[in-house]
Amino acid sequence: MKILQIKDSVVSIASEIQNAYIDFSKMTVSIVAIVTDVIKDGKPVIGYGFHSNGRYAQAGLLRERFLPRLIEAKPENLVDDQRDNLDPFKIWDILMTNEKPGGHGDRSVAVGVLDMAVWDAVAKIEEKPLYKLLAERFGKGKSKKKVFVYAAGGYYYPGKGTETLVQEMQGYLEKGYRVVKMKIGAASLSEDMQRIEAVLRELENHIDAGETPGSRLAVDANGRFDLSVALAYARELQPLGLFWYEEAGDPLDYHLQNELSSAYDQPFATGENLFSHQDVANLLRYGGLRPEKDYLQMDPALAYGLVEYSRMLDIIDQFNWSHSRCVPHGGHQFALHLAAGLGLGGNESYPGVFQPFGGFADETPIKDSLVGLTDHPGVGFEAKSDLINLFNKHFQ
Amino acid sequence: MKILQIKDSVVSIASEIQNAYIDFSKMTVSIVAIVTDVIKDGKPVIGYGFHSNGRYAQAGLLRERFLPRLIEAKPENLVDDQRDNLDPFKIWDILMTNEKPGGHGDRSVAVGVLDMAVWDAVAKIEEKPLYKLLAERFGKGKSKKKVFVYAAGGYYYPGKGTETLVQEMQGYLEKGYRVVKMKIGAASLSEDMQRIEAVLRELENHIDAGETPGSRLAVDANGRFDLSVALAYARELQPLGLFWYEEAGDPLDYHLQNELSSAYDQPFATGENLFSHQDVANLLRYGGLRPEKDYLQMDPALAYGLVEYSRMLDIIDQFNWSHSRCVPHGGHQFALHLAAGLGLGGNESYPGVFQPFGGFADETPIKDSLVGLTDHPGVGFEAKSDLINLFNKHFQ
Repeated sequence: MKILQIKDSVVSIASEIQNAYIDFSKMTVSIVAIVTDVIKDGKPVIGYGFHSNGRYAQAGLLRERFLPRLIEAKPENLVDDQRDNLDPFKIWDILMTNEKPGGHGDRSVAVGVLDMAVWDAVAKIEEKPLYKLLAERFGKGKSKKKVFVYAAGGYYYPGKGTETLVQEMQGYLEKGYRVVKMKIGAASLSEDMQRIEAVLRELENHIDAGETPGSRLAVDANGRFDLSVALAYARELQPLGLFWYEEAGDPLDYHLQNELSSAYDQPFATGENLFSHQDVANLLRYGGLRPEKDYLQMDPALAYGLVEYSRMLDIIDQFNWSHSRCVPHGGHQFALHLAAGLGLGGNESYPGVFQPFGGFADETPIKDSLVGLTDHPGVGFEAKSDLINLFNKHFQ
Repeated sequence: MKILQIKDSVVSIASEIQNAYIDFSKMTVSIVAIVTDVIKDGKPVIGYGFHSNGRYAQAGLLRERFLPRLIEAKPENLVDDQRDNLDPFKIWDILMTNEKPGGHGDRSVAVGVLDMAVWDAVAKIEEKPLYKLLAERFGKGKSKKKVFVYAAGGYYYPGKGTETLVQEMQGYLEKGYRVVKMKIGAASLSEDMQRIEAVLRELENHIDAGETPGSRLAVDANGRFDLSVALAYARELQPLGLFWYEEAGDPLDYHLQNELSSAYDQPFATGENLFSHQDVANLLRYGGLRPEKDYLQMDPALAYGLVEYSRMLDIIDQFNWSHSRCVPHGGHQFALHLAAGLGLGGNESYPGVFQPFGGFADETPIKDSLVGLTDHPGVGFEAKSDLINLFNKHFQ
């Protein structure tokens, strides 16, 4: 078997939203289609890939380095002989040929896009949903049928106030999410506390007996704070009992993260901007995170794909963390399959933004903050009409 | 004043050489020219930039993100009003607008290329060599007239043996270098020790009274080793008293570096694959390096330029290291100016490879492992005929 053709394109996901670090006014996504010579139902198997929001399209790196390496490789060097299928690990090695160690950014996105498409094709060739294939290959066959998801939103919109924020969160709760996330750090501490308290008042209307509203709310500073500001927020947030306090400081500032642990005993979440297993090892070694309560958000679609994510999980094993502490950034079907197939604790979800890449199959509504997976082969993009329509529009 | 135009191009520096991690068969370099409206000697001032070897050209990222941001910026947001010149720090902020934290690779190269061209233009507009401008702005006016350089080479060439390696090193010593560097890690430990011992025998013919041959030889593993191999090499290298043992393990594996310190008390060197001040802080905090003997090799032309390098120097100050422990990777005129103007300990030099980017002004031969700087304004590319000819060929 072999790859016949690889197509790539760029899609805008520009929007008005802002977090504490960037606005999304020019945000783009690379998409790829890997066409194989395997025929199923009379048509060639095509694997599709894209990357998560927040990092830009990688047309340049794909065309300058990664697509040529794949196209120039001997077909036998890309194939899993025993399974008569593509081999994602061999393909990864071909993609990273003559790339120096260190410097994990941008190229990690380009490789992530291709890796997603490879796994989609591999599972389609085996005629299985990806999560089942992953459970068989990595997880002794155990997979989840439903995955915890939380609604990530609460961005800053120019000119829109707290009322809009509360309405947005209310909408997520009515759609079936139990946990919602909002941005902090682009306003002052006192303004942010007013925004948080307004959302907590809304959450009062939705909690079950014995629950606190804080247990349903996560906040995300997107790496904006220095240590003193991060600590000031920690002191204000501590009594609220939040679901998590995300990316307080620079993603590589393990010292800040570690200092913060001594001042805040509620859960932290971080890791979406760590793009290699080496960085993850450093976070676990130096960041002071607590395996019984904190969350790791590494995003396979930004970080060299599932091949590298499997190495991150090996690191997590070595540090005696449970895979259930992982809740990837990204909010898409690919990460959902990883969560279901590899025993992760959940997945992000963007009910309101980053369409059509955000979200899951059309037939799987959110209920009790859980989302199911369908039995479509591969990642199941074909079961998400807006997304498969976009792929078809670009690649047919 | 304002920028009139920015041109970019890609140049091949492909060669047969290999280190322990990559070959250079498809290595490329991005070059840029920033044309200003400032007229000197009847011609517009043009700043030129490129990046160091080892990372690939960045045409895609430049054209997709960084050049548009610069071109779309209001001219007044790029200018140092007090000096009526470009402001490299303001320009850096424009370049990095809406880039998330973390993920320091590839884009750090694209920004590095532009930053070099900006500083070249800034110094030309002030009619000073860059090292003098840097000494005035950052270093209380003190600059060096000559900088220590060592000859970096000793790559693996397919089909060429130890004799060729020894001849290469002999050539460097005859050219005026006192210290030479060779690659290790692409052969077995025993083969590498034979290669090292052959070079040490040659060095016996060149050392002064009281010197050891090892004090004139550095070895570079390019991040290839895991801890056990790195330790095995350390045990064999320890009695040789080498100038340094460079990048034994993965550049982000601070734990490995720290473990190694306990087993090897001769100098280490590392840092060429750390592309942000956050990574440098982690290296100094966790890597076990010793400020009295180890070397830091961060490369401004791969790591967001001199603006970010100035932040790295702030980190170095905070950790009570001397700037003299810094010997940047890169082997070019730009890093030489940083060494002379910012009090660094020296600079890499590639007498045999990566031309015309490697090397210094035509009129400055190496003597006693020192190289002088000329008084040409800016980086002085105009005093390196092969390099300015290349810029002229691409941009005129």
